[in-house]
Amino acid sequence: MSDKIRVTVWGENVHEKTHAEVAQVYPRGMHQHIAEVLLQEPEKFEVHTATLDQPEHGLTPDILARTDVLFWWGHAAHDQVADEIVARVQALVWQGMGLVVLHSGHLSKIFRRLMGTACTLTWREAGEKERVWVCNPGHPIAQGLGRYFEIPSEEMYGEPFAIPAPDENVFISWFEGGEVFRSGCTWKRGNGKIFYFRPGHEVYPTYLQKEVGQVLRNAASWARPEGSRWVDGCPNIPVEQAPEKIVSKGGSVH
Amino acid sequence: MSDKIRVTVWGENVHEKTHAEVAQVYPRGMHQHIAEVLLQEPEKFEVHTATLDQPEHGLTPDILARTDVLFWWGHAAHDQVADEIVARVQALVWQGMGLVVLHSGHLSKIFRRLMGTACTLTWREAGEKERVWVCNPGHPIAQGLGRYFEIPSEEMYGEPFAIPAPDENVFISWFEGGEVFRSGCTWKRGNGKIFYFRPGHEVYPTYLQKEVGQVLRNAASWARPEGSRWVDGCPNIPVEQAPEKIVSKGGSVH
Amino acid sequence: MSDKIRVTVWGENVHEKTHAEVAQVYPRGMHQHIAEVLLQEPEKFEVHTATLDQPEHGLTPDILARTDVLFWWGHAAHDQVADEIVARVQALVWQGMGLVVLHSGHLSKIFRRLMGTACTLTWREAGEKERVWVCNPGHPIAQGLGRYFEIPSEEMYGEPFAIPAPDENVFISWFEGGEVFRSGCTWKRGNGKIFYFRPGHEVYPTYLQKEVGQVLRNAASWARPEGSRWVDGCPNIPVEQAPEKIVSKGGSVH
Amino acid sequence: MSDKIRVTVWGENVHEKTHAEVAQVYPRGMHQHIAEVLLQEPEKFEVHTATLDQPEHGLTPDILARTDVLFWWGHAAHDQVADEIVARVQALVWQGMGLVVLHSGHLSKIFRRLMGTACTLTWREAGEKERVWVCNPGHPIAQGLGRYFEIPSEEMYGEPFAIPAPDENVFISWFEGGEVFRSGCTWKRGNGKIFYFRPGHEVYPTYLQKEVGQVLRNAASWARPEGSRWVDGCPNIPVEQAPEKIVSKGGSVH
Repeated sequence: MSDKIRVTVWGENVHEKTHAEVAQVYPRGMHQHIAEVLLQEPEKFEVHTATLDQPEHGLTPDILARTDVLFWWGHAAHDQVADEIVARVQALVWQGMGLVVLHSGHLSKIFRRLMGTACTLTWREAGEKERVWVCNPGHPIAQGLGRYFEIPSEEMYGEPFAIPAPDENVFISWFEGGEVFRSGCTWKRGNGKIFYFRPGHEVYPTYLQKEVGQVLRNAASWARPEGSRWVDGCPNIPVEQAPEKIVSKGGSVH
Repeated sequence: MSDKIRVTVWGENVHEKTHAEVAQVYPRGMHQHIAEVLLQEPEKFEVHTATLDQPEHGLTPDILARTDVLFWWGHAAHDQVADEIVARVQALVWQGMGLVVLHSGHLSKIFRRLMGTACTLTWREAGEKERVWVCNPGHPIAQGLGRYFEIPSEEMYGEPFAIPAPDENVFISWFEGGEVFRSGCTWKRGNGKIFYFRPGHEVYPTYLQKEVGQVLRNAASWARPEGSRWVDGCPNIPVEQAPEKIVSKGGSVH
Repeated sequence: MSDKIRVTVWGENVHEKTHAEVAQVYPRGMHQHIAEVLLQEPEKFEVHTATLDQPEHGLTPDILARTDVLFWWGHAAHDQVADEIVARVQALVWQGMGLVVLHSGHLSKIFRRLMGTACTLTWREAGEKERVWVCNPGHPIAQGLGRYFEIPSEEMYGEPFAIPAPDENVFISWFEGGEVFRSGCTWKRGNGKIFYFRPGHEVYPTYLQKEVGQVLRNAASWARPEGSRWVDGCPNIPVEQAPEKIVSKGGSVH
Repeated sequence: MSDKIRVTVWGENVHEKTHAEVAQVYPRGMHQHIAEVLLQEPEKFEVHTATLDQPEHGLTPDILARTDVLFWWGHAAHDQVADEIVARVQALVWQGMGLVVLHSGHLSKIFRRLMGTACTLTWREAGEKERVWVCNPGHPIAQGLGRYFEIPSEEMYGEPFAIPAPDENVFISWFEGGEVFRSGCTWKRGNGKIFYFRPGHEVYPTYLQKEVGQVLRNAASWARPEGSRWVDGCPNIPVEQAPEKIVSKGGSVH
């Protein structure tokens, strides 16, 4: 058995077909390019891709069973993701599967369901400079970066970002146009580790940038399952199996 | 204008009609009895009730607009609550409406959507003794109680309770049969304060007990909205409205 | 009895005497000017001041007993604050006294002891522009502000800010020189609500700015004690007072 | 270089010399027995011990530099631990060293300084039964245990436990005498992972029990450093090193 972290990169793969400039930046589809970035450390990762247009969006039970960490990029078609598949992914996150949500994935069904909030923000598409600051240089996701790194052209996302308080805020972005944003945040839902990473608008070659690739690989390592895949349920504990001896009394509806 | 906290108590009101022993304990319906418990401090609260069988489950936009804190008790019919109403309640919680989720409401759609987790637990219906411990005697929800209080007969809920780490754990229960449970937990989603309170199985007169009533009234006061009702959205900030002067560059999909 | 929130503003009051330009901006001492800003809502607040050079730094048990919320500004003389006074303040925070730590107070003994971390950051004194963004427009501390406000000249504080993850991040600052900072953060320690607010370098008239005053008053209201002043201790519960009847067995060192 | 986790077990080693019954249970000193329990997985851990009576309490800079995870058991002599050593340990926790605080260590200087709270609780020494419940069966620290495990005789610790809200509550204890307690809690301070584990009163052979040993080894693995050892400081960023070109303006005290 391999010790590699098994990553599935899910891409919506819509804009790549409908917008020439996206296809020019990511000719093999964003999912494929992100996969290639992870595979720059082939000894660490085993990477598959999945897209919206595949049966079950490429996220069959079998594929997810072999996924340690799921990456999620979507933008134009959040509503086309079937609720059943979202529920399937969510249950696996609870069981420990890591989830890395990228950029416009902040409005994806899976992210909003795990957060329980609106996950809204402000935005501007002006290709302005983004400077991503490291809030904790010792954090696993921040390894190999300096104090900050810059992305020459990006879409702006600004506060307020309607999320529950993150477990940790790893990155905060400074934008040329004057805004700020919590660009790298972690949470845990069940036993799944979740990382939201802001950069990655489809018309800019953000995921091909060295520092961004470093973050993606760091995040994939950080989000891998720990412990064991506990499947929650609502088991009844019969009276005779109570740790202390008791006798049933009172009413019952069951 | 009144300074009273406007509470709406939502009750599923199913078991009261189908189980004689529930009707015997709560002849006017659980929602009505809970409302009466809150109204033991009439100077503090203005209380309405709503039930599943009413149009829009009694949770019309108009009624919710006049609700500071919503209490939620459900058990047998979680699935019959319309998704549209759940989304409506959730959006209002984000805007600051308080939510007090009672007992079997742990599996309600609204609680699970706000938590983002399975909210499962273990359980036993044996009418055993429950001792509810106060983890923080200074907390607003714990005022007027001693170090603990006992409920003579209750359904047991046991760990693991599949919730995100609470902001605060106000109560933990000890059960006669040997289990423990995080019985009083707080979270914030958006600007809404959420309190989950475990006790309240429908066949026992739990909500009529003095200490439990105290907790319900404390919780209603604690969960009232603070600040203002911010409605989140995803506003575009045009280039000309950027705080710093910038010029648009690069590609665009919008 | 008054319903006003009783605030004590503690000021180090050192730079005001040693640096002419500080004395020029804050001729009555920073503590006094901050007090005056709070008293712009005299119906809400009753305000006293205390300084390092007073007996017990002006923080006698009697004065603290009449303090709902303590404001803390210090910079040059953190080490001159007696450990005994710090312990006294800390114990009162645990009992519910609010604490608002301002600017260079990030390195004060009281803040570092409550946080448990180094509370370090990066800094630059260049009088650059600071834009303070609201991360949650519905939060009580953000009321009466727009989406952001600007301070024309401030000292820069930059990430990494070595704090435990805040309960809530109310403000994030954008600096002209390119940095970002978590400028408004909340925590709870015991029952005391703590707010750290970044702006307020002594050579600029920051606390005299309208929006900053609004934040100070909002923070004073938000941080007031809730619940009751529980004094923690380590009480022994004798065997005969155990809630369940038990018989002592096994060894003992007590 | 070894990949083993380097653990230092710190024991106060006072009761072992002054109380015959403690010496009988732990003839080689508690620290030594805890070390032996960890070494039941010799391929995973490299273990040293340190005690109060050694120079610098056995916690020299050199020894700590070779420590990935520090275990801490103290009870009778918390005040005899030098402040300088406490500060040294605390700084290393911030840099990523793991810390496992055992039982009466809840009142140790190091734990209280990292928490920022009183860390008090209620207690009873009656040798009663403790049942330790797993709140999250998938958590790394809970691996290899069942739904719960029992310790035949233990000191009781009861709520309220005056701690900041834990990042995760892994265990909650049920006591024969009727109390409950958050027995296994995690926090992060700086980059150091901290685990508090309740059981381990010195007159009972708790650390020799199989399940308890499993928890200790799990905790040692969980608490190992991740990322890198970032040493925080307060660096000045000169104007000419600002990421954006700015010109200094306004006053200065530096």
